[in-house]
Amino acid sequence: MGRIICAGLGPGDPELMSVRADRLVRSARHVAYFRKQGRPGQARKMVDGLLAPDVTEYPMEYPVTTELPFDSADYNDCLARFYDGWADRLAEQAQTRDIVVLCEGDPFFYGSFMHLYTRLQGRATVEVVPGVPGMVGCWWATGLPMTWGDDVLTVLMGTLPEDDLTRHMQAADAIAIMKTGRNLPRVRRALARAGKLEQAWLVQHGTMPQQQISRLVDTSMEVCPYFAIVLVHGQGRRPEVAP
Amino acid sequence: MGRIICAGLGPGDPELMSVRADRLVRSARHVAYFRKQGRPGQARKMVDGLLAPDVTEYPMEYPVTTELPFDSADYNDCLARFYDGWADRLAEQAQTRDIVVLCEGDPFFYGSFMHLYTRLQGRATVEVVPGVPGMVGCWWATGLPMTWGDDVLTVLMGTLPEDDLTRHMQAADAIAIMKTGRNLPRVRRALARAGKLEQAWLVQHGTMPQQQISRLVDTSMEVCPYFAIVLVHGQGRRPEVAP
Repeated sequence: MGRIICAGLGPGDPELMSVRADRLVRSARHVAYFRKQGRPGQARKMVDGLLAPDVTEYPMEYPVTTELPFDSADYNDCLARFYDGWADRLAEQAQTRDIVVLCEGDPFFYGSFMHLYTRLQGRATVEVVPGVPGMVGCWWATGLPMTWGDDVLTVLMGTLPEDDLTRHMQAADAIAIMKTGRNLPRVRRALARAGKLEQAWLVQHGTMPQQQISRLVDTSMEVCPYFAIVLVHGQGRRPEVAP
Repeated sequence: MGRIICAGLGPGDPELMSVRADRLVRSARHVAYFRKQGRPGQARKMVDGLLAPDVTEYPMEYPVTTELPFDSADYNDCLARFYDGWADRLAEQAQTRDIVVLCEGDPFFYGSFMHLYTRLQGRATVEVVPGVPGMVGCWWATGLPMTWGDDVLTVLMGTLPEDDLTRHMQAADAIAIMKTGRNLPRVRRALARAGKLEQAWLVQHGTMPQQQISRLVDTSMEVCPYFAIVLVHGQGRRPEVAP
């Protein structure tokens, strides 16, 4: 009996993979990873040069859903069948061999692998290796500590409605906003309404060679990469001798 | 000129250190780490067996502040002088050699090193290696995915007032509560008021050999270790084919 091992690869820089993930990647005979049709896939790109030359690859290509509204039953069914199908295929493969599933960031933190993980329970041996989440790599990239003392950190998806975003931003001390992409204008409006736009940073491709960091007010960008994260750093208490 | 390099060590299991942190730890000639007086120090324990036998160690012992209220000027001054002193000593050492500062978790995420980091700006070359935060190791330990879809994750400190905790818990989908320790009864009351006590997990020493996981309602513990984290997992949308 083999296993399905999901290796969290961290934020992008291969040196930020864990010792365990690095060893798994280098010794893997069979790897699977998600990607969009016609794209190399972020997780696959991260391990370029680390995989054995004769490794067998299973690209799990997301179905094209551009015609379907995100909240429609058709969209839901299309994705559910995609995950059902790959869970079946991986469970079958794992009867006889180990398969390493490559996932960027931390697999249990908004990761696509979770959809396979729940489907594979009781059908195969499944292991997960935690990783440095993408947002941690992004706040590292700003060179500024993220949370101090009793700071409240809230993690938000840019896909949320503007009123929800604003309310959560007002209540938090430190904020990380993921899934920005086409939602950047809404994120910007919500931050402005919460009075926090001036403190916000946009980090694209954190820890990767093409890393870009800017204050959000200094960019007029309307769409940013999917891997871009908007951050507001906490400013909680810290011990300082009075001057 | 040397450097001060803070290595984030991750949640506890040495195999979850990054490739870069692992290499830094193994090749270090001089290491510094925080610890309480008379204790080995969590970060130092994590690298047992990895350090070179002739490494020079600088334990940075927190001053004893048990007599001082947390919000008093005396407490603040005592800690500020402690950090000032160690920033001076590390800056001086870094004139001639590299010093690796060992820190559990991720250094920019509620880490003590941040107090040295801000004090060392412009005085020494300082580098930081991000790590897997302790909370990520704790949700991995539960074997349950933490956040799905548009889930809002809020990170709270158990030191916050009960009303604040309750309010934030009500607004969040997924919750991680750190600095539990003696604050566990207050955390429990706040979770009950927010209607989320039944879903809460207590993870002690996540990813370490002495790891312990229980539902919070199944323990009557009044005080837990400082490294214990309380978690409420998100239950956001996920694609499933209708039965």
